[in-house]
Amino acid sequence: MAYKTVPGTRKAQKLVHLILHFIALLAGIVGIYAVFKYHHETFNIDMYTLHSWIGMSTICLFGLQWLLGFFSFCYPKAETGARSRLAPWHVFFGLVIFFMAILTAETGLMEKFHFLKLHRGQEALIVNFTGLLILVFAVSVGLTVLLPRGYN
Amino acid sequence: MAYKTVPGTRKAQKLVHLILHFIALLAGIVGIYAVFKYHHETFNIDMYTLHSWIGMSTICLFGLQWLLGFFSFCYPKAETGARSRLAPWHVFFGLVIFFMAILTAETGLMEKFHFLKLHRGQEALIVNFTGLLILVFAVSVGLTVLLPRGYN
Repeated sequence: MAYKTVPGTRKAQKLVHLILHFIALLAGIVGIYAVFKYHHETFNIDMYTLHSWIGMSTICLFGLQWLLGFFSFCYPKAETGARSRLAPWHVFFGLVIFFMAILTAETGLMEKFHFLKLHRGQEALIVNFTGLLILVFAVSVGLTVLLPRGYN
Repeated sequence: MAYKTVPGTRKAQKLVHLILHFIALLAGIVGIYAVFKYHHETFNIDMYTLHSWIGMSTICLFGLQWLLGFFSFCYPKAETGARSRLAPWHVFFGLVIFFMAILTAETGLMEKFHFLKLHRGQEALIVNFTGLLILVFAVSVGLTVLLPRGYN
């Protein structure tokens, strides 16, 4: 999205893209650490639901994608030909990982919904509308990424 | 996907695309009817989870998309200019609706997982691996649709 929204040179857009994703990766790792710590302290078992499986795969793939992107597009950089062949795959897997993150969020909301034994009522509505908002957010991001790139 | 995989003219591909989506729409409607009937017979309440909300939105959008596609690309057909402007949006919303269907399936699995009170064990593994397979399926379909079209 940085390539579509940040004003400035392509180099500046790239740096913003790199830094934002690095912050997201760190936040993800802190989040997962917090989950394990919480499970450990409440004597819960780890990694048994689909939510956890998809979430863990997402963060691992995100880390791999970030490292791959860093080494091929930033430092030490692949050759120009290899970079241009790699770029569409980097974008496609970026979308896949984003889609997996959305899936993790939605399954997480479902999980919380059932753990709290919600049915109808305000809390249930809050959970469901959060889910719908996440969906609308996902569609907007997808649209931004798939739209043809503007002129600089 | 018919445009990438069905051998034959573009007209034949279009027909396969139209018919397969019509069958999918009918199957979806029968599925939703079955859910309401089941809820009615077991005295359950309808439409309170995120799974149901996303599922219902998906089928409604799918129906709208099908009707819009039918009238603009098949009969009575829009003008060529309008069709070519509409086509990328038809593809994008096709992907969005597909993504929502996957989301519905995954949240449905989570729901079943918690209704059956699974933790570890074979049933839990079956549910989770089904979820992962659906994810892999989604990624493959996404890849097929986003890949550049082959030559006929």
